[in-house]
Amino acid sequence: MHANILEQTMTAKTEYQQLCQHFRTISHFEHFSALGDWDQATMMPMGGSEARSEAMAELALHIHSLKTSPRLAEWLDGAEAKAAELSIEQRANLREMRWHYAQAIAVPGDLVQAKTLAGYRCENQWREQRHNNDWQGFRPNLEAVIALVREEAQARAAHTGKAGYDALLDRFEPGMTCKRLETTLGAVRDWLPELIQKVKHKQLHQSYKSSAGDYPIADQKLLGREVMQYLGFDFNQGRLDVSSHPFCGGVPGDIRLTSRYTENDFIAALTSTIHETGHARYEQALPKDWRGQPAGMSRSMGIHESQSLFFEMQLGGSRAFISKLYPRIRRHLDCPVSAHELIDNITRVKPGLIRVDADEVTYPAHILLRFEAEQAFIDGSLEVKDLPDFWDQKMQQYLGLSTAGNYKDGCMQDIHWTLGELGYFPSYTLGAMYAAQLRFAMEAELGPIEALLSQDKLGQICDWLDEKIWSKGCLLETDELIRSATGQSLDPNFLQRHLQQRYLD
Amino acid sequence: MHANILEQTMTAKTEYQQLCQHFRTISHFEHFSALGDWDQATMMPMGGSEARSEAMAELALHIHSLKTSPRLAEWLDGAEAKAAELSIEQRANLREMRWHYAQAIAVPGDLVQAKTLAGYRCENQWREQRHNNDWQGFRPNLEAVIALVREEAQARAAHTGKAGYDALLDRFEPGMTCKRLETTLGAVRDWLPELIQKVKHKQLHQSYKSSAGDYPIADQKLLGREVMQYLGFDFNQGRLDVSSHPFCGGVPGDIRLTSRYTENDFIAALTSTIHETGHARYEQALPKDWRGQPAGMSRSMGIHESQSLFFEMQLGGSRAFISKLYPRIRRHLDCPVSAHELIDNITRVKPGLIRVDADEVTYPAHILLRFEAEQAFIDGSLEVKDLPDFWDQKMQQYLGLSTAGNYKDGCMQDIHWTLGELGYFPSYTLGAMYAAQLRFAMEAELGPIEALLSQDKLGQICDWLDEKIWSKGCLLETDELIRSATGQSLDPNFLQRHLQQRYLD
Repeated sequence: MHANILEQTMTAKTEYQQLCQHFRTISHFEHFSALGDWDQATMMPMGGSEARSEAMAELALHIHSLKTSPRLAEWLDGAEAKAAELSIEQRANLREMRWHYAQAIAVPGDLVQAKTLAGYRCENQWREQRHNNDWQGFRPNLEAVIALVREEAQARAAHTGKAGYDALLDRFEPGMTCKRLETTLGAVRDWLPELIQKVKHKQLHQSYKSSAGDYPIADQKLLGREVMQYLGFDFNQGRLDVSSHPFCGGVPGDIRLTSRYTENDFIAALTSTIHETGHARYEQALPKDWRGQPAGMSRSMGIHESQSLFFEMQLGGSRAFISKLYPRIRRHLDCPVSAHELIDNITRVKPGLIRVDADEVTYPAHILLRFEAEQAFIDGSLEVKDLPDFWDQKMQQYLGLSTAGNYKDGCMQDIHWTLGELGYFPSYTLGAMYAAQLRFAMEAELGPIEALLSQDKLGQICDWLDEKIWSKGCLLETDELIRSATGQSLDPNFLQRHLQQRYLD
Repeated sequence: MHANILEQTMTAKTEYQQLCQHFRTISHFEHFSALGDWDQATMMPMGGSEARSEAMAELALHIHSLKTSPRLAEWLDGAEAKAAELSIEQRANLREMRWHYAQAIAVPGDLVQAKTLAGYRCENQWREQRHNNDWQGFRPNLEAVIALVREEAQARAAHTGKAGYDALLDRFEPGMTCKRLETTLGAVRDWLPELIQKVKHKQLHQSYKSSAGDYPIADQKLLGREVMQYLGFDFNQGRLDVSSHPFCGGVPGDIRLTSRYTENDFIAALTSTIHETGHARYEQALPKDWRGQPAGMSRSMGIHESQSLFFEMQLGGSRAFISKLYPRIRRHLDCPVSAHELIDNITRVKPGLIRVDADEVTYPAHILLRFEAEQAFIDGSLEVKDLPDFWDQKMQQYLGLSTAGNYKDGCMQDIHWTLGELGYFPSYTLGAMYAAQLRFAMEAELGPIEALLSQDKLGQICDWLDEKIWSKGCLLETDELIRSATGQSLDPNFLQRHLQQRYLD
């Protein structure tokens, strides 16, 4: 091809095509930030921290510069002016492109770089500091991160006209506001404490045999892999590894999830593996035709958590599911309890200090606490130095437990804030609410989940989720997606109904 | 700091400082290409290949664009004009920066991207194709890569005025030419065949007990880790993993090496672990003050291989070293031979098909073959379709072995060409030559290595290498470095003398 013909072809590219190519390039760089994140949590030796933090900050800055490129703004304007020429799906892709641009342009590049650097440094040191209950060492690092998050919230607020915390929420749950959260997540305050009391009271009178024992970690890993396979995870397109904080990361075609193990309890690792497999199946089933484009990404973190919590709670807490897993568990582990007793263990409600180990009834209380702390950090009414007291007081209020002096299992337990990710936590409870709502909608079409699982029709359940959620990527907006799947917008009552049914009826 | 003061500070930066900052940025992106390479070889599931290949190609293009930036050319000119203001070390850094720029500007960006993409695709499929002896499947992939390498050689030749293959050699061994290689590597043709015959004849009359046995891979890994520790590898700044082709990669502060294991033989994995640890110690000891700068990198691939081969051959083939390892080996493995018999196994000379498993006497023959094939690929006298015949003929000529029909252990055995890395192979034998020369120089100062090792003075040996080679990074040019370490330029006779001494005297 001669140069001038090539040039004409280039000129002939529509703005929309230029945009697609540009976002494809961005996705190639995001590939490496996903890889760097995964590697840091699973493989990287401590000595690699500094170089990794600097490289991640440089990469974040580069991605930011691609997302805020002036040409991108021109192409967006041009493509939007000619949106009528695009298909519905292309228009959805264009809408998401605009969203990514708006998210990026709201924050200056040097702040992105500074926050990434501070975040990775804080996270790297946190691993050991948490282990040593070293609040004094951790505090200045977290202070540096929170100061930058406040700057970020201000910048986002100034750019979007939203309130500071709303602007942060928007990153994870587009369109979500504090006000809407108060009527969904906040509403939990009205019914949760009483529910917890009732369930505790009911379970007090149930006989209970602990599943604690001695479970070699290598065997737990094999069990985890087998359960992932049962749940349809494709190991040709992903991995299972170990990290101190379980997560699902990776890139399309290569989804990497992690779990963490203790020798005296296999349930924690098993449930977190099931949880992460929910995330992973969503990622593995995103529309392949849209790979590398914004429309091909997962919808929001609330929807993402709805899939992991559907797996962990709606499936993992069901009697039929545990019965199906039970022979697999026995094959790998010397489990001293019956299938029935195992279900009692899994559905045991017991307020505890650790969010990731919490049962589904007390879990929302952990989120409420963090939701309130995040708002207070952003509106300036809470300082890092006062966080341990704040934590202790809220834990006492919501769950009747004290964390005084126990930073490790208190305000130092989560990875999110170390990385400056404020605004994420509400996604967990939104996810639990979406998951419950999806379950009721699914059952209206397919019949009870318990029956489907008993009849080995797990595939039907996954197909339903694939059709309604996974295959849609970002083609619909969150509310549209949930309405098309369930016939109505998010309704927090489904979670309450689910918990009532499972724990009190 | 106010914006205008900041601006003044920016303007006040010298060209040299701008260059340092720019190369630091480049090093941050190279961090991810190193991570991507390592991950692809050790962790990535097959399903991740396509996305990884595309991302690596995008990253290569970006690094290329940074290395060819017009501002970089201006800064280089400016800094060179004021070189008198720089320290000797800064001038060395500037010299290396110019070298990197010249290497990059010689090749157009789209060729870099195309070659990276074709290379990763070829390598990804090669793993399985090699396993299946699938030459027909592999051939078109290699043809695509070789076509791009020819283009690359032409472009480099046109830009530098060098011959095509010399321009490729230059990437790995700056300043090396075919002509010089003929007087070093090529000279091997004159004495190697006779030496091999003599050694074989001598060993024919020695009693020999094979160390073949049953060695669980998990135990071999533990042994490998312990030997690495004995050799001074810092696990806080690195890892050991498994890959089908052993290598040493990673980034400063996080050096990642790999080995590969078979159950019936522990020597192959052990020697390759020792080899890679030589690379790794070099990398771990590069000057920290120069991290992220060209002057802080390893000198050349020949020098790199000299360190790995010093460890593998000069140390690993010595009686005292094996005697020190022997109790460690016995602790981990059920080894049926004595220390003395183990040495016989390790120094057993036996022409074989596989380069990485070759003994140090026959190894140069494997390199000669590849050196000749590479030249023929570039001058157009060899086509990929004729490679199997070429290989078979050369193997018969140099080692008396046929590879007819056995592509897997013939022309499909190496990773280098799959990635389009032509010009690397000579570095191995250059490395063996440098290693022998270094050993004689070291012994002149410290006394015999055998004695040092017997007296547990491995530390002294490493300190010597650190002082003469590792800590110098790229501050000296190759010839300067080797002269300052040994008092003379590269002299291939040292390798011949070493092999004579060890195998015939």
